[in-house]
Amino acid sequence: MNSYRKELCFNFPSRRGFVNITRDVEAALRESGIKEGLVLVNAMHISASVFINDDESGLHRDYENWLEKLAPHEPVNQYRHNDTGEDNADAHLKRQIMGREVVVAVTDGQLDFGPWEQIFYGEFDGRRRKRVLIKIIGE
Amino acid sequence: MNSYRKELCFNFPSRRGFVNITRDVEAALRESGIKEGLVLVNAMHISASVFINDDESGLHRDYENWLEKLAPHEPVNQYRHNDTGEDNADAHLKRQIMGREVVVAVTDGQLDFGPWEQIFYGEFDGRRRKRVLIKIIGE
Amino acid sequence: MNSYRKELCFNFPSRRGFVNITRDVEAALRESGIKEGLVLVNAMHISASVFINDDESGLHRDYENWLEKLAPHEPVNQYRHNDTGEDNADAHLKRQIMGREVVVAVTDGQLDFGPWEQIFYGEFDGRRRKRVLIKIIGE
Repeated sequence: MNSYRKELCFNFPSRRGFVNITRDVEAALRESGIKEGLVLVNAMHISASVFINDDESGLHRDYENWLEKLAPHEPVNQYRHNDTGEDNADAHLKRQIMGREVVVAVTDGQLDFGPWEQIFYGEFDGRRRKRVLIKIIGE
Repeated sequence: MNSYRKELCFNFPSRRGFVNITRDVEAALRESGIKEGLVLVNAMHISASVFINDDESGLHRDYENWLEKLAPHEPVNQYRHNDTGEDNADAHLKRQIMGREVVVAVTDGQLDFGPWEQIFYGEFDGRRRKRVLIKIIGE
Repeated sequence: MNSYRKELCFNFPSRRGFVNITRDVEAALRESGIKEGLVLVNAMHISASVFINDDESGLHRDYENWLEKLAPHEPVNQYRHNDTGEDNADAHLKRQIMGREVVVAVTDGQLDFGPWEQIFYGEFDGRRRKRVLIKIIGE
């Protein structure tokens, strides 16, 4: 069994946003030389997500609006986490809806995806340096 | 390390529904011959889920009602994704709540499950052909 | 490829609560002797979660309040699952938000974590014996 590890770095100019990282994961997979196995892609920070869905800007606006309805940022004093001096409690909630990680099959050296699957980094508390981990195991 | 790959196919007559696929995953595990490892089971489509919960019809009605409350299908014009001509934005939201994938331990050639764990395919935009991927790695 | 399996047991005195199990997963990893691979940690019961987030008591109160708002326990007769004599339908819903499982990379014999990542067991229907499975594969 072989393994390969790579980090991606982000520094979003805004509090929230989504970025397609599929090409980055494919590049890591090529570098690994692994042909059969599993890829784990996870946010290393607890106010961010990695998820798989559609690369369509209207849908991303729907996610933004929907998450803000389910776990609003304001008023920040509605959250006990923010009593610590933080203002990002909502980001920790939004990240649970969207998920921390994805696990993707590797078959014949490719991400084994359906027709529309794309991997996204979801930022819910940006404006600072954050990381994503790619870990590949297989042969 | 060995690996095994299998697809399951679905074509739901209705927009939404749940189907127990535990027996199908167990059959794939037997076919693989793998005794120790991990099974990944994921929806290959981005408006569907694979999740683990109880095989109880009342609970499935509760999921249907609850998801419809959290991410209603109607009115379809509340979603920017539907400006593209689609009417399934709600399905992309519901799938994030229920999840894309499950990873299950394989021990002694069996799915290593608690007493009530069952694997389900959750369809949120049916009436067309869709697939689930089973990928097993181990020895 | 090697594998290692361990169960953790819980018996919460209350219906709901969170407990940090990071040290237990690290202990299992040391016992396994595995240096490179993946760890799967999952609830073996369908009204409980394993998730990764912050070890901050204010945030845990926010999760409790938020989940109770998204999927209230009362009135119990709002759920068809509870027609079976159960009163825990809300626990099955809450667990879908927080997730069943986490998959964590193992690098150099350590959980490959960002600065604040901690693993939690989330109980939504306690006052009885329940289990978590740790399965480690790698070399």
